[in-house]
Amino acid sequence: MKRVKIVSLISGGLDSIVMLHLLKSQGYTQMALIVDYGQKHSKEMNYAISAARKSGTPHRLAIVKGTGLFKSALTVSGMPIPTGVYTTENMSTTVVPNRNAVFGNLAASLAISLGYDGIAMAIHAGDHELYPDCRPKFVEALRNLLEVATGKPLLVLTPFITWDKTSIVMEGSKLGVSLVSTWSCYEGRQQHCGVCGTCVERKRAFAKAYISDLTSYEH
Amino acid sequence: MKRVKIVSLISGGLDSIVMLHLLKSQGYTQMALIVDYGQKHSKEMNYAISAARKSGTPHRLAIVKGTGLFKSALTVSGMPIPTGVYTTENMSTTVVPNRNAVFGNLAASLAISLGYDGIAMAIHAGDHELYPDCRPKFVEALRNLLEVATGKPLLVLTPFITWDKTSIVMEGSKLGVSLVSTWSCYEGRQQHCGVCGTCVERKRAFAKAYISDLTSYEH
Repeated sequence: MKRVKIVSLISGGLDSIVMLHLLKSQGYTQMALIVDYGQKHSKEMNYAISAARKSGTPHRLAIVKGTGLFKSALTVSGMPIPTGVYTTENMSTTVVPNRNAVFGNLAASLAISLGYDGIAMAIHAGDHELYPDCRPKFVEALRNLLEVATGKPLLVLTPFITWDKTSIVMEGSKLGVSLVSTWSCYEGRQQHCGVCGTCVERKRAFAKAYISDLTSYEH
Repeated sequence: MKRVKIVSLISGGLDSIVMLHLLKSQGYTQMALIVDYGQKHSKEMNYAISAARKSGTPHRLAIVKGTGLFKSALTVSGMPIPTGVYTTENMSTTVVPNRNAVFGNLAASLAISLGYDGIAMAIHAGDHELYPDCRPKFVEALRNLLEVATGKPLLVLTPFITWDKTSIVMEGSKLGVSLVSTWSCYEGRQQHCGVCGTCVERKRAFAKAYISDLTSYEH
C-alpha cells in the first residue's frame, strides 16, 4: 500500500508534537516543517527540532521575515506578553496577523516541491475565538485556495479541529508522547512562566485530563 | 477623503511596476512589498527597489526561504531555464509551487500589521494556463481565505486580471512609466537574454502595442 506523504507544520508546542506522533501512528510518511517567523525566542523551535528527531521524522526549516511583517506581542520586542486566562481583550496582542494562512500555504509549497500529497496543521477547537484561523471554515477556505492556486487538490489534515486541548493531552499520553518535552510558553525563559495565556491553558488541560503535569513552571 | 491604503506586491517586472504607477495615479497610498524567495538572481529585486524609490513609494523587503521550499527552475541552481515561447511542456519547470498564494497571504500579514485596507497583485489574464494562480478564481479564493482567516474582509486589488501584457505595456506608456527600467528576464545577466519565455513575451507585448522597446536583449 502506498503511504500517504504529508508536510506537518510543527511549532514545538504540545498540540503539534502530539499531532506528529498521531499521524506517525496512523501510518503517514511525514516531513516536519518548522517556521522561523521572527519569534522573540527560539525556544519553541529548538523543542520542535528535538521532538522531530526523537520521533524519527525528518524536518525542514523555513524562514519568513520582514520588518513589521507580523506585528504581534510574540514578535515585536517592547510589546509585552499579556498574562492570565484568554479573553479577547487581554490576548488580542498575541494574534499574529494571518499566520496560519501563510504557514499553510508555505507547507503546501514544500509539499508540492517534494511531490507529497498534502499538509497537516495542529489547530484545534479549543483555540480562542480571537484566532479565526483555527476554525473549520478556515480549513475549508485554505483547501479551496490550494486547489485553485495549484490546479489540483491537496490534502489538508487537521486531526484536532474538533478537539479541545484536554483531549490532545489525553491522546498524547495514550501515544506515549513525552509531553514534558514540548514548549507552550510565550516567554522564552528557562522554565515555563506559568502565567501567560498559553501556560494557563496548558496547566488547565493537564488538570482536566487528570494527567500529572511534569512541566516546570515559575509560578 | 480618506485614502485607501494598499500593500502592493512588486517584483521589478514590467507588470507590477506599471501597477504601482497605476494605483498611484488612482490615489491609493501604497507600501510596496518585495519578496526574496531564493531567486537565482537578485536583479529583479534591485529593479523593484529602484522603481519603488523613483515612484516615491516606500517599500519593505520580506524573506521567505527554506531548503527545497519552492522547487523551480527559477530557484534551483542546476535546473536550466527553458527558452522559447510559453508552452505547457517547456515552461512547467518555471512554475514556483503556490507562489502567489504565499505572497498574497504575506502581503495580507503586512497590511494588517500596518493597519492597511488591502493588498494588490499584478497578475494578468495573459499569464499562461500553467499558472492557475493568475486566474479570477484564484483571486476569489484568496479573498475568501483572507476574510475567514482574519475575521474581516481585506481588499484584494488585481487591476490587470482581465488584461493581456500588451494592454499593460500600453497603460505603462500612457502613464509615463520608464518601462526600460523594469526587468523581465528569468536569467540574471547584464542584459535581458531575449530567448526565455518571459523575454519572448515582453518583446511580443511591445511589438503588439506598437511601442518601441528600448530593452537591451542579448538575442
